[in-house]
Amino acid sequence: MSRLHELLVGLPAPDAASAAAIHERAATILRPSGALAWLDELAAWIGGWHHTARPVVERPVGLIFAADHGVAAAEEVSAYPVEVTAAMLAAYRQGRSTINTFARLAGATVHAFDVGVGRPTGDIRFEAALSPERFDELVGLAVDAVDDIDADLLVLGEMGIGNTTPSAAIAAALAGGETAAWVGRGTGVDDAGLDRKRAAVQQAVRRIAGVTDPIEVLREVGGSELVAIAAAVVAARHRSIPVVLDGYVVTSSVLPLVMVAPDALDHCIVGHCSAEPGHRRLLERLGKRPLLDLDMRLGEGSGAMAAVPLVAMACAGITDVPTFGEWFG
Amino acid sequence: MSRLHELLVGLPAPDAASAAAIHERAATILRPSGALAWLDELAAWIGGWHHTARPVVERPVGLIFAADHGVAAAEEVSAYPVEVTAAMLAAYRQGRSTINTFARLAGATVHAFDVGVGRPTGDIRFEAALSPERFDELVGLAVDAVDDIDADLLVLGEMGIGNTTPSAAIAAALAGGETAAWVGRGTGVDDAGLDRKRAAVQQAVRRIAGVTDPIEVLREVGGSELVAIAAAVVAARHRSIPVVLDGYVVTSSVLPLVMVAPDALDHCIVGHCSAEPGHRRLLERLGKRPLLDLDMRLGEGSGAMAAVPLVAMACAGITDVPTFGEWFG
Repeated sequence: MSRLHELLVGLPAPDAASAAAIHERAATILRPSGALAWLDELAAWIGGWHHTARPVVERPVGLIFAADHGVAAAEEVSAYPVEVTAAMLAAYRQGRSTINTFARLAGATVHAFDVGVGRPTGDIRFEAALSPERFDELVGLAVDAVDDIDADLLVLGEMGIGNTTPSAAIAAALAGGETAAWVGRGTGVDDAGLDRKRAAVQQAVRRIAGVTDPIEVLREVGGSELVAIAAAVVAARHRSIPVVLDGYVVTSSVLPLVMVAPDALDHCIVGHCSAEPGHRRLLERLGKRPLLDLDMRLGEGSGAMAAVPLVAMACAGITDVPTFGEWFG
Repeated sequence: MSRLHELLVGLPAPDAASAAAIHERAATILRPSGALAWLDELAAWIGGWHHTARPVVERPVGLIFAADHGVAAAEEVSAYPVEVTAAMLAAYRQGRSTINTFARLAGATVHAFDVGVGRPTGDIRFEAALSPERFDELVGLAVDAVDDIDADLLVLGEMGIGNTTPSAAIAAALAGGETAAWVGRGTGVDDAGLDRKRAAVQQAVRRIAGVTDPIEVLREVGGSELVAIAAAVVAARHRSIPVVLDGYVVTSSVLPLVMVAPDALDHCIVGHCSAEPGHRRLLERLGKRPLLDLDMRLGEGSGAMAAVPLVAMACAGITDVPTFGEWFG
C-alpha cells in the first residue's frame, strides 16, 4: 500500500453545525433570501471546513508543482520544448508569471516546488512513470509543502511540458470511453502532434490494461507533479483547508482519489472549466460545477486563482453584511 | 429630443492601435499563445478605451442609483415593501450592503445616489413613469455623477423595490416576444405576485403600443434609476470609461441605447448572468456573453462588482507578465 493509500484513510468531515448556521444566517441577511445562491453555498462550504459560522478568506495560498515527463522528452507531444518547464519554474519563483499577477490581485501568495524538473519520469508508453519508492517520496514532498503553509484557501497548480498526455492517460484509464476523446491540444500542438499524443496515450493505457487500483494508475501513467497535486489535496483535507482545483491536469490528478474514497474531494471546488475538451467531461464525472468558464487553458493554477476573489466575496457576503434584524433592530 | 438622445450623438470610438498592440503582445507573452483567450480580449478592450497598450484596472468605482416606483406602491409586484429602497440606500452609504463588501475585495469604491427615493414614478400601468422634464433632469444627475468620479472601470447598480416590473416592460416593448416570458420573480414574489406582475407589465406594454422611439419607451414604462443608468452608461462613453453591466434591471435600462445607436454599448461588458429568466434572453439579444454565471439575483451592482477582479487580472496578465523575448532575452 502506498503512502497515498494510507493518507486516504480517516479523512475528516466538515463541521455541519457551522455550515448550517451559515445557511440560516444567509436566509436573513440584508438582501432577498437566496439572492446570492451559489455564493452562499460556497460560504457555508468554507465555514464547514474552517469550523466557523463567520467564514473569511484572508490567506489564500497557491502551490505550484513543476516536473518533467519522459514521454515529452522522447516524443513531440507538446508545442514547447521540455526546457520550458525549468524556465517557468524560475518565473514563478521570481513572481513574474501569470499566476503570480493573478495572485497579487487575489491577495494570495505563491510557492513553486521543483518535484522533478530535469528528472523526467519514465516514458509512460513503455514503463511506469514512477517507481513505488519515488511515488511515496513525492507524496511526502507534497505533504510537507502543505504542512509548511498558513492558508485558509489553497490553490494547486502545475507545470510540466507534456503533462496533458499523462493527464489524458489517467482519465482514459479511469473514466473510460474512447481514449482519443480525452486527448486535446494542451498548449497547442498541431494536427501531427495531436496524432502522436493520441497514440502515446493509447499505448500507455493499453500497457496498464490489467491495473485496477486507481492509485497505481496514477503511478503508472501519471507524472511527478500530478502525484504531488493528488497528495497535496489529501494533505489539505487532513488540515481542513479548502482547495480550489484548476484545469485538466489538476482534475485528472485527483480523479484517482474519489475512486478510492468517494468523499475525498468534498473539500474541493473547481475554479474554472478549461478549453481542454476532456476537462468538462471530467467535471461531469466528478459532479462538480466550475465557478468560471472562460476558455482559459494555461494551467499553473491560474484559472483556480482567478476564482479566489469570488470565494472571498462569498464569505464576506455572510460575515460582513448585517441581517435584516441587525440592520433594522 | 431628450437629453439622452443628444448624448447618443457623436459617441467616441476606442483606440484601435492600443487594442491591436495588446493582441500582438498577448501572442508573445510567457504562456502558450491564446491560453488566456477571453481575458486577453478583455485586456485589449480595456486598452482600447483607455488608449494604452499597458492597461490596468486600479480605480474601479461602483455607482448605485436608487429610486421608488409608482407601480410598486399601488400594486404588490415585489416580495418587499417600498420602504426597503430607502433602507438599502442607507446601507450602501454606510458601506454595509453586499455590494460594499464585494467592492472592498475588488479594490473599488462605491457611491450611492438618491434619484427618486420617496418620489415614486407614475404608475406605468396608467401613465408615463416620468415627464419629459423629469427624464432630462435624471439624465443630468447621472451625467454629473459620472463626471465627478475618477474611475478606470465603472460598475453600475440599482435599487428600487419593484423595479424588475418596469425592466420587464422595457424588454417586452423593445425586444418583443411573449410579454409574460420577460417577467420573473425578481426578489422572490409568490405565484399570486407573479400573476399581478405579469398583468401590470402587459397593461403597461399595451398602453404604449404606439410608441416607437426606444428612449420614449424608457421614459414611459421605465423608472428613475433605470434612466440614470442608461444616462450614466452614455456619460461614461464620452469619458472613455469602460463599464461592467450588472443584471436584468441594468441590462433592460441600456437596451434602448443600442436601438438608437447600435455601437452604444461597445464600451460595456456584462459582469454576470442573473437567475431572472429574462436576463439571459436580453444578453442574447445584445450579443453579449456574461463573465460570470452564478445564479445570483441581487442587483445593486453586485454581480458586476464580482466580475471586477477578473478584468483587473486580464489587464495584469498583459501589463505585468513579460513576453518570451523579455524573459529569455
